Amino acid sequence: MNPFRRIGVIGKRRQPNTQLLQDVCTAIADLGCEVLLESNPALKNARSVEQVSRDVIGQTCELVVVVGGDGTLLDVGRALAPTGVPILGVNQGRLGFMVDIPPATMQETLAVIINGEYEIEDRLLLSARMRRNGGDPGPERLAVNDVVIRNQATIRMIEFETWLGEEFISNHRADGVIVSSPTGSTAYALSGGGPLLHPSLSAMAIIPICPHTLSDRPVVVGGDKLIKIVVHGADRTQAMVTFDGQTSELLKSGDTVEVRSAGCSLRMIHPAGHSYFRILRDKLRWGSDQLPTQERV
Amino acid sequence: MNPFRRIGVIGKRRQPNTQLLQDVCTAIADLGCEVLLESNPALKNARSVEQVSRDVIGQTCELVVVVGGDGTLLDVGRALAPTGVPILGVNQGRLGFMVDIPPATMQETLAVIINGEYEIEDRLLLSARMRRNGGDPGPERLAVNDVVIRNQATIRMIEFETWLGEEFISNHRADGVIVSSPTGSTAYALSGGGPLLHPSLSAMAIIPICPHTLSDRPVVVGGDKLIKIVVHGADRTQAMVTFDGQTSELLKSGDTVEVRSAGCSLRMIHPAGHSYFRILRDKLRWGSDQLPTQERV
Amino acid sequence: MNPFRRIGVIGKRRQPNTQLLQDVCTAIADLGCEVLLESNPALKNARSVEQVSRDVIGQTCELVVVVGGDGTLLDVGRALAPTGVPILGVNQGRLGFMVDIPPATMQETLAVIINGEYEIEDRLLLSARMRRNGGDPGPERLAVNDVVIRNQATIRMIEFETWLGEEFISNHRADGVIVSSPTGSTAYALSGGGPLLHPSLSAMAIIPICPHTLSDRPVVVGGDKLIKIVVHGADRTQAMVTFDGQTSELLKSGDTVEVRSAGCSLRMIHPAGHSYFRILRDKLRWGSDQLPTQERV
Amino acid sequence: MNPFRRIGVIGKRRQPNTQLLQDVCTAIADLGCEVLLESNPALKNARSVEQVSRDVIGQTCELVVVVGGDGTLLDVGRALAPTGVPILGVNQGRLGFMVDIPPATMQETLAVIINGEYEIEDRLLLSARMRRNGGDPGPERLAVNDVVIRNQATIRMIEFETWLGEEFISNHRADGVIVSSPTGSTAYALSGGGPLLHPSLSAMAIIPICPHTLSDRPVVVGGDKLIKIVVHGADRTQAMVTFDGQTSELLKSGDTVEVRSAGCSLRMIHPAGHSYFRILRDKLRWGSDQLPTQERV
Repeated sequence: MNPFRRIGVIGKRRQPNTQLLQDVCTAIADLGCEVLLESNPALKNARSVEQVSRDVIGQTCELVVVVGGDGTLLDVGRALAPTGVPILGVNQGRLGFMVDIPPATMQETLAVIINGEYEIEDRLLLSARMRRNGGDPGPERLAVNDVVIRNQATIRMIEFETWLGEEFISNHRADGVIVSSPTGSTAYALSGGGPLLHPSLSAMAIIPICPHTLSDRPVVVGGDKLIKIVVHGADRTQAMVTFDGQTSELLKSGDTVEVRSAGCSLRMIHPAGHSYFRILRDKLRWGSDQLPTQERV
Repeated sequence: MNPFRRIGVIGKRRQPNTQLLQDVCTAIADLGCEVLLESNPALKNARSVEQVSRDVIGQTCELVVVVGGDGTLLDVGRALAPTGVPILGVNQGRLGFMVDIPPATMQETLAVIINGEYEIEDRLLLSARMRRNGGDPGPERLAVNDVVIRNQATIRMIEFETWLGEEFISNHRADGVIVSSPTGSTAYALSGGGPLLHPSLSAMAIIPICPHTLSDRPVVVGGDKLIKIVVHGADRTQAMVTFDGQTSELLKSGDTVEVRSAGCSLRMIHPAGHSYFRILRDKLRWGSDQLPTQERV
Repeated sequence: MNPFRRIGVIGKRRQPNTQLLQDVCTAIADLGCEVLLESNPALKNARSVEQVSRDVIGQTCELVVVVGGDGTLLDVGRALAPTGVPILGVNQGRLGFMVDIPPATMQETLAVIINGEYEIEDRLLLSARMRRNGGDPGPERLAVNDVVIRNQATIRMIEFETWLGEEFISNHRADGVIVSSPTGSTAYALSGGGPLLHPSLSAMAIIPICPHTLSDRPVVVGGDKLIKIVVHGADRTQAMVTFDGQTSELLKSGDTVEVRSAGCSLRMIHPAGHSYFRILRDKLRWGSDQLPTQERV
Repeated sequence: MNPFRRIGVIGKRRQPNTQLLQDVCTAIADLGCEVLLESNPALKNARSVEQVSRDVIGQTCELVVVVGGDGTLLDVGRALAPTGVPILGVNQGRLGFMVDIPPATMQETLAVIINGEYEIEDRLLLSARMRRNGGDPGPERLAVNDVVIRNQATIRMIEFETWLGEEFISNHRADGVIVSSPTGSTAYALSGGGPLLHPSLSAMAIIPICPHTLSDRPVVVGGDKLIKIVVHGADRTQAMVTFDGQTSELLKSGDTVEVRSAGCSLRMIHPAGHSYFRILRDKLRWGSDQLPTQERV
């Protein structure tokens, strides 16, 4: 019994690989499934497949195949996670952390998955709301990787308080702060000195960026917690809050950003036998035969 | 209704503060509770209190007051956690991360707690077993803070594999590796570059010590996981495994150390209104008015 | 023989401490020296002292006393270093890394220094020039602490090449890069993971900010070297170059920033017996009695 | 005019590559130079070449070719640096940081170098002396990479003071401390969080290992300085001092280790056009096309 009868395909907005998208659509159709391709002005030649909006895909498909890079998957993930539709990533270009199916084996992997041999992985999603100057919370914003508050127009530090629910954590002075999901722990958070969080862990990491106080270290808290960040002294620095590095809003002194785990999660599909650490070993070049520091012999 | 009618008191093995121990015992007795003091050759003057073994305290008391430093609490915690008896720490000397009741307010705090105004905090405890050269697992060893595998007689790196259950994580070359509980995340793990883990988080951190590969970063996994570390190439380096920095065993190439969360936890008692982050702010000097790096103005 | 007969005094531009400035001027006059105060609209009451421009101070004084924070000294240092006039810092507010004479002992310290008991310390100054899109180098810009290239309007990484003279170092992807003098090694560079450079060392540190590649670590090179940073892919990120965190310019893809040690240095005056590490111990709370991580006992 | 008429060849003590050593000797002889091979019981078949002691090689040769790994070069470097004979490294096995001539191009490279097309690079060497309990300094010990003081039998921290000449730096509590040369900055020092020091920089880095205080950061000082480390509280921890990770001595509380740059340097020979950063890019995988953290797009 195959749950995936109607499958959406979404490519990169800019510079999609038309041929690869066509191949993916053909491969799915050849497996006897219905294909809906996200409409995109950049796709002129993909005539044989029905093109629909992303909303229609989210509402009617049982599986979405993203063809692009990790950035494309972040964008689609934020948009479609609330629908609960599972997502599969085929990489256009370099192998990604999330778009982990190479084009060369795409056809075979799709056959196996559509045949029911797959694993489901639910990734914690971040939900953020802003309270302007202590007022009511604004609309919910989702993030797959991270919610980042950072200075903008200058390198002048911003000041902010962090809270865990009603418990005060600390005052900080830094370039900014990253609140990262386990998925985001291999992204900006890692560059900022954060730990790797196993994707099955229900947790969020709070990582100050270039903090003034050297003991201001990353803190990992449970996925059931509410993180509040109150921004001070940001008027001179033009702080901004950014979701997955893709969409931003300006912040003013007194604004509070509240981050918790979202009610929905990002449901990802992997071929059976998928290993998270195999991707990490590959991307981070762990255990490489070529040694990165001098041998101590 | 006060659940603490029979209270054990345990001091430092070496150089206990006899006067402070006497004061704690007196304060407890004055509150109408029965007191059992751990017998210790170093305590000659504490004649008025019944002295018993640690085992008797664990089996018969409803609360244990540890008088000493964090090291004393680690030692008592490993010994008594299986009995489920809750522990309270009075610091002899500097305020600790866990022995957080100063002598000056000890009497008052004990009165409040014995009056029933307290909070219970269950801390994840680590359980380790060794398999010699792939053989059967040895006896369980507990650790409150950390299980550390490290080179010993030389600074030659040890080689080891890490596994998460049956999933291979990576090969490593390093001085060693720390497996830390949330409680241990403020100890050796922090010096080794690990993140702070909130004590309510059911998680363990795997932290390579001075790793050869610069991308060999701390990994945080769920408390429901099994971590396996297989030691290689340790014969020339005389690797050892250490529990809370207090007890050690030698390791040989081929030995496996398995670490998981223990069936029991360390039950700690705090006065009502206790704040974990207040201790961190104090110890790590967070948000200090005196700034540790040059102002960027 | 006292070389300091004519002494300039420069306060903070904004919110100067009028009383402290007046006290410094009086103390200098009482020691028989001539005082020139930098004119400042914020100083209305300091009528008894001659107010002149910063240029006049640089051209005619034998010593300049800066009254403010480290930021004030950076600003004055960049402006006056080419004149060779030595600078002394009296801190208004917190003790600084460079403004290290507290108001309480200012009078006494000035007497000792003007009496000839002092130490001269020449600090390496950075000189930067920009080549727009490979063209001719622009005017020289000085920096006491650091020359920082960083993304601005977004957290999208910038790409850049680094060169040591004609030798290619590497390609980088990061939030930016800090080129720091020894003086700047306690400032932004320290927050960014750089080492402390002893002020007598003729060296510069190149520190990538939140780099994409985890092995992209700080590099320290000699003060006789030329560092070139070629910015790529900055159009989408609006990169900027900043001098001492105080003045900035926008950068475009193809622009090169060249940094070398300046022909002049920042000449600082300290009371005899001055210790650089005493300031560090104080500011960084080194060797503190209160321990920042759990005792491993 | 070729200065290298008499050339020594030194292989690994244990498991030398007899064939490669023979090939190197033949290549040198074919170029019309005299060859002296270090005698080694492990070399049974290398009959055609004269085998002599390392001392004879140091006293009579104009160039020494080391065939092995970086560890072999460290060992030879410490022994022969005082003679001033330049050293060239051919790697047996993996390309090293110092043994940078691959066997495949060995013959050609030797021809070019013996033909006079080469670069000389003098690397700073560390000189260490121990004062037992404040007494007279012991004999000089050299180190190419680093002088490391570390705990040994346990992970209990050692306590030590650091001094720069007569100026007190700080008290420390840590696993130990690394004093590194620029050459050693790619070795243990890098794993311990130290910066890369350009090989032409006359400097030494002081790097605490897993320090208790989070602000206890690496310090870089000039090559003209004297670094003194006074060990305290080491009796319970059995501290040791190690030179290049290869030879060790036990330390007791009260012992002082004095480190300065040696009177001699390690003279290395490279083929013309040698690039230090090319080796770093290769070993540290800088600027790699495959990205080690998630793209932030």
